[in-house]
Amino acid sequence: MKLVIAIVHDDDAGELIKKITRKGFGVTKLATTGGFLKAGNTTLLIGVEKEKVEEVLDIIRKVCTTRKQIVSPPSPVLGATGVYVPNPVEITIGGATVFVIDVDKFEKV
Amino acid sequence: MKLVIAIVHDDDAGELIKKITRKGFGVTKLATTGGFLKAGNTTLLIGVEKEKVEEVLDIIRKVCTTRKQIVSPPSPVLGATGVYVPNPVEITIGGATVFVIDVDKFEKV
Amino acid sequence: MKLVIAIVHDDDAGELIKKITRKGFGVTKLATTGGFLKAGNTTLLIGVEKEKVEEVLDIIRKVCTTRKQIVSPPSPVLGATGVYVPNPVEITIGGATVFVIDVDKFEKV
Ligand code: NI
Ligand code: NI
Ligand code: NI
Repeated sequence: MKLVIAIVHDDDAGELIKKITRKGFGVTKLATTGGFLKAGNTTLLIGVEKEKVEEVLDIIRKVCTTRKQIVSPPSPVLGATGVYVPNPVEITIGGATVFVIDVDKFEKV
Repeated sequence: MKLVIAIVHDDDAGELIKKITRKGFGVTKLATTGGFLKAGNTTLLIGVEKEKVEEVLDIIRKVCTTRKQIVSPPSPVLGATGVYVPNPVEITIGGATVFVIDVDKFEKV
Repeated sequence: MKLVIAIVHDDDAGELIKKITRKGFGVTKLATTGGFLKAGNTTLLIGVEKEKVEEVLDIIRKVCTTRKQIVSPPSPVLGATGVYVPNPVEITIGGATVFVIDVDKFEKV
């Protein structure tokens, strides 16, 4: 038995949980936030038989692709001489950090 | 040293933490929710000497038994022709998923 | 690759994350609470190369020192014969519980 610890972008967590659950794997969602510059992460714990680790990793690779997103900065302060129009900014979202850990003993009570 | 990761029903977490703490084991509670159909889970991290893993597992087995519970669905909408009376439903609660993991190095700062 | 799981005092988490991030290590913050008598803990997951585990442990040891703090108990009830003045109490805060775990496989998607 292996424990997969996957740290993923919040926006991907719902779809990832759905796809992993459909394949019959047990998944637990931990409330998380990343370190600096990485707010908005979710950590998932997935218990999986040794032979199926690659299957789970494939699902993660497909769902948690990194991609570009155009975002507008939050509403600017209205100045006396008019409205400041912010330039939209391109950011990278998605991705995942995955640790696979060996499990000594696994038990369902 | 071993790390026991126990995913238990919210309703059992309080009693489990109390019993584990009384036996002198350190326990940390993570805020968690389960995957689909499994909302309301709590994940506990318990550091324990190799020789005492079975003692901790025994506590978990005793506290986190699965059992039936009769629940009434939430209040129904009041229809024009009268009140719909829902049938109570029997659900299974409790249980636990437990991973025991080997610890390379353990340190109390 | 190793996974360092560090359970630290809330008050130390911010500084610890900052220092660990500056050294180039990835860190994920889990929302946690301790067991009885240990409310206010934060659990951090830190992925680190085997050769750098000691470097991370050194940062934790420096930031998460245990120290004494004088606290006043919450406002006392006002009695009929006057105000009860509570004695400030000395408590120990800080410290850390650290597990280092071997990682079978590590992947950045
Ligand atoms: Ni986002
Ligand atoms: Ni419940
Ligand atoms: Ni505190």
